[in-house]
Amino acid sequence: MEIKERWYEGKGNDGDVVISSRIRLARNLRKYPFSAKISKEEEIALLKDAAECTEALEEKCGKNFFFCNFNSLLENEKLAMVERHIVSPNFAEKDANTGLVLSEDESVSIMVNEEDHLRIQAFARGKNMHEVYRLSGLVDDTLEERLGFAFDRKYGYLTSCPTNVGTGLRASYMMFLPALTHTGNINKLAAELAGYGIALRGIYGENTENIGDICQISNQRTLGPSEREIIDSLDNVADSVVAEERKAREVLVSKHFEEIEDQIYRSYGLLKYARNLSCPDAITLLGQVKLGADTGILKFDGEFEFYKMMINIQRANLQMLNGAAYGNAKRGRYRAEYIRKNLPELINQK
Amino acid sequence: MEIKERWYEGKGNDGDVVISSRIRLARNLRKYPFSAKISKEEEIALLKDAAECTEALEEKCGKNFFFCNFNSLLENEKLAMVERHIVSPNFAEKDANTGLVLSEDESVSIMVNEEDHLRIQAFARGKNMHEVYRLSGLVDDTLEERLGFAFDRKYGYLTSCPTNVGTGLRASYMMFLPALTHTGNINKLAAELAGYGIALRGIYGENTENIGDICQISNQRTLGPSEREIIDSLDNVADSVVAEERKAREVLVSKHFEEIEDQIYRSYGLLKYARNLSCPDAITLLGQVKLGADTGILKFDGEFEFYKMMINIQRANLQMLNGAAYGNAKRGRYRAEYIRKNLPELINQK
Repeated sequence: MEIKERWYEGKGNDGDVVISSRIRLARNLRKYPFSAKISKEEEIALLKDAAECTEALEEKCGKNFFFCNFNSLLENEKLAMVERHIVSPNFAEKDANTGLVLSEDESVSIMVNEEDHLRIQAFARGKNMHEVYRLSGLVDDTLEERLGFAFDRKYGYLTSCPTNVGTGLRASYMMFLPALTHTGNINKLAAELAGYGIALRGIYGENTENIGDICQISNQRTLGPSEREIIDSLDNVADSVVAEERKAREVLVSKHFEEIEDQIYRSYGLLKYARNLSCPDAITLLGQVKLGADTGILKFDGEFEFYKMMINIQRANLQMLNGAAYGNAKRGRYRAEYIRKNLPELINQK
Repeated sequence: MEIKERWYEGKGNDGDVVISSRIRLARNLRKYPFSAKISKEEEIALLKDAAECTEALEEKCGKNFFFCNFNSLLENEKLAMVERHIVSPNFAEKDANTGLVLSEDESVSIMVNEEDHLRIQAFARGKNMHEVYRLSGLVDDTLEERLGFAFDRKYGYLTSCPTNVGTGLRASYMMFLPALTHTGNINKLAAELAGYGIALRGIYGENTENIGDICQISNQRTLGPSEREIIDSLDNVADSVVAEERKAREVLVSKHFEEIEDQIYRSYGLLKYARNLSCPDAITLLGQVKLGADTGILKFDGEFEFYKMMINIQRANLQMLNGAAYGNAKRGRYRAEYIRKNLPELINQK
């Protein structure tokens, strides 16, 4: 089962460096206690409230929306959504009446009964935070109008954890930074960004490792600056990271062309022929191939969809694609098979 | 420049395990002192004697023969002949009036003024020592008739080094033993063979390493047994090594099929796409591909000529093929290019 036209399919702005743009809003309803004190009955009432908003969301956003009782999903379905960033890892493990509102293209998700009553997320491919802001804003307005959010004139939106109070907004870019990682300048960059209140971290949140030279940058402060200010400041930083990464790639390719070319082609050859691939190895090799595509070293007969492949080879999504459960031993073989089938052929291969 | 139809092109008997069969005869002429005491004038006279035999060799063997003053060749031409086993490494470096008689298909070579006056070599692909024996015998008889060899009724053929006295014959099989190497049984095997007076060693003679799981087995004794006995005894040993290697491959493939399959396909992918390959790495990878071909894991659209590729990617032969001199930096890239162009495509690639 493969759903067509998820938000991440196709090409995005500055797609050589920026994989995706995301906004997350933390919101709580006035009428219920915060999640630490909410009763089971109130949790269930909140699910009903959220479910009843899908029609209004469809009208406002022009997308199809679904609601489901998230806690009744199979473990593998939950994990697949974590891998696609639709829900947070904590949410997937939470023992509560969790619910999920999701647009068909998965560009909008609303976790119900997460750490806050509602966690609204919006996504776009490439560097496109203004589109994501527009979309999350439409969702935010639609829900606020119907459900009424806890808001303080002085502090702004009130949240379970004080680090989210204020705008309740976290904006992040997922970035592919192979050249800055290669030169080791990524650590210097992380320190610089911290000075601007921007965190650089692994793609599955705090304390996760960078895999395949991918990381995310996001704002740390939610209280004080306005939503616009947060987004503009992150955008400025992202622009300079994009420029630095491109410059580092140019240097890398001009100074070490033959080494880089060899490494990129070897990665392609391994992906095209291996019969068993671990997930971290596969993502690293796919990253090399992406670098090959971005630098023009590899030319494909068809679209190389890095992010889509990276999602689909992860444990739970891979299992969803194959439609059957299987153990560790088989997983690496299914992963290699998926990659062989989906990695486009090269053109003008000398 | 690529010469067509060298002796090693095409398929040989038991070619999954035995790459080639070789006999080397050490011979000295009665009329000249042995090489330690031979004068420059006598060396030159010996060259003339050898050169004058080419016509008779052509008649007897039904092959074209050439003579050349070996010491006047370019360094790279000499090294290319060492790589193809036409001459010994010592011969290539010897500061003397060296000469070479060579058949067009390179199945017969005669080193003139090596450690002995003449070192006759004959080769055949696969396991075919009787053909090699027939061929070396024809050459031996032709030369003996014309030149007269130093022969003692008690000791047999007299040679510079006493270890060659008697038959002056060394017979050897070049063998591909990946499974016995993988299981570690190769060391046990070497010890067993020593008990039968058979040495197992690297392919460029004593103290050379096994590259790509290739080694050679040869008789140690030349004095005592007859030529026939030496060959029959080596043949018996070779048969049992072939059987052991095949059994080890069966166990390997049946017990670890998925690992071996993955490794073989990865090797193929690297060879097919790498832009830079060192010689030992390339031979190891080609050996994996050969194992894939032998076990039926890989099926080719065309012939996979392992030995021919292994020869052609070596330093001097690679340079001969490209027709130009170049440094180390370029060599790895030419090697990778040669392999990409000459490695056959797979059929039924899933």
